[in-house]
Amino acid sequence: MNKTYFDLSQTEHRDRYKLLTGLIVPRPIGWIGTRRSSGTFNLAPFSFFNVVSTDPPTVIFSGGAHADRPKDSVTLAGETGEFTVNIVSESVAMAMSVTSGSFGPEDDEFAIAGLTAVTGTLVDAPMVAESPANLECRTTDVVEIGGGASRLVVGEVVAVHVKADALDGTRVLHSRIEAIGRMAGTSYTTTRDVFEVVRPA
Amino acid sequence: MNKTYFDLSQTEHRDRYKLLTGLIVPRPIGWIGTRRSSGTFNLAPFSFFNVVSTDPPTVIFSGGAHADRPKDSVTLAGETGEFTVNIVSESVAMAMSVTSGSFGPEDDEFAIAGLTAVTGTLVDAPMVAESPANLECRTTDVVEIGGGASRLVVGEVVAVHVKADALDGTRVLHSRIEAIGRMAGTSYTTTRDVFEVVRPA
Repeated sequence: MNKTYFDLSQTEHRDRYKLLTGLIVPRPIGWIGTRRSSGTFNLAPFSFFNVVSTDPPTVIFSGGAHADRPKDSVTLAGETGEFTVNIVSESVAMAMSVTSGSFGPEDDEFAIAGLTAVTGTLVDAPMVAESPANLECRTTDVVEIGGGASRLVVGEVVAVHVKADALDGTRVLHSRIEAIGRMAGTSYTTTRDVFEVVRPA
Repeated sequence: MNKTYFDLSQTEHRDRYKLLTGLIVPRPIGWIGTRRSSGTFNLAPFSFFNVVSTDPPTVIFSGGAHADRPKDSVTLAGETGEFTVNIVSESVAMAMSVTSGSFGPEDDEFAIAGLTAVTGTLVDAPMVAESPANLECRTTDVVEIGGGASRLVVGEVVAVHVKADALDGTRVLHSRIEAIGRMAGTSYTTTRDVFEVVRPA
């Protein structure tokens, strides 16, 4: 297989961004809800996001250092010690995209995108009522990456809300969630084309 | 929308695992190649993996604390300071699954799965020749999660190899990569069903 080689120390940031976000796909989307000290709400999507442990149940998200990315969520999750993760289904894809825009520091992205904010049971951060599932999280660590502006937020998931008809016990029926994944640029993938790979014995 | 509520402090680990891996989808797969001090190779897939920054270019992966997950990769990435990330296309899905099995500490998963190991240009860890793209990484941090056995490996991506016909400059043509994403259990999603969401102005 003929491959093209890139030494990233010799590559412009824009090209590194395109390569890494184009190759590391599909990325799950953490639609992060936080509360400001003024009491207003912030909501923004992050695809530099994932679960990293289930014992303790832990998720991470990162604002990266890309100019287009909102970073208020990172700051607020650190300051208030709380955030929510809202799962992005196909039905809320457009609203999610609206909240990725640049707004003023006191703008309420829930109102701008026509979404309903519901305060968590164990945390005061806002959840998206229209999302099929919501995770309530407490910030446990904010890790500096590479000495620059990038910050990795680590949080423990303390509570979960899931659309009742998408559950079989604690098994999640993906066809009832219809989560979308982030690809490069403005592209997203559905999770409709699912197949099984049998594990080795 | 009627939602079911779970307080995770009152939930068994097995149920937390099912909820979090069922809801946080689709997850990209980091097929992690490492070299042992004996010189033999290790290869194992992780879906607790993502890009978290592009400046500096940074990826993370986590062994979690799940008994079924291989953790040699975490230990070796920390000890040797090097690892590779190999992108999992549909064409190598079965081989990837083979390498998720439990093998002895000196077994070579490349040989077991019938894969070709190629040493990196800037790091000595092995890359999967059959993968459509490979990232060479240097470990920058190993972060403890929650005081338990979970470890988050943070690495800087120093070089990238991409199948030449999957590139338009530095833009990656996802239809030529055919990456797969991890869903819950033994389920995976293709990235064939892609759609565009226009960003707000």
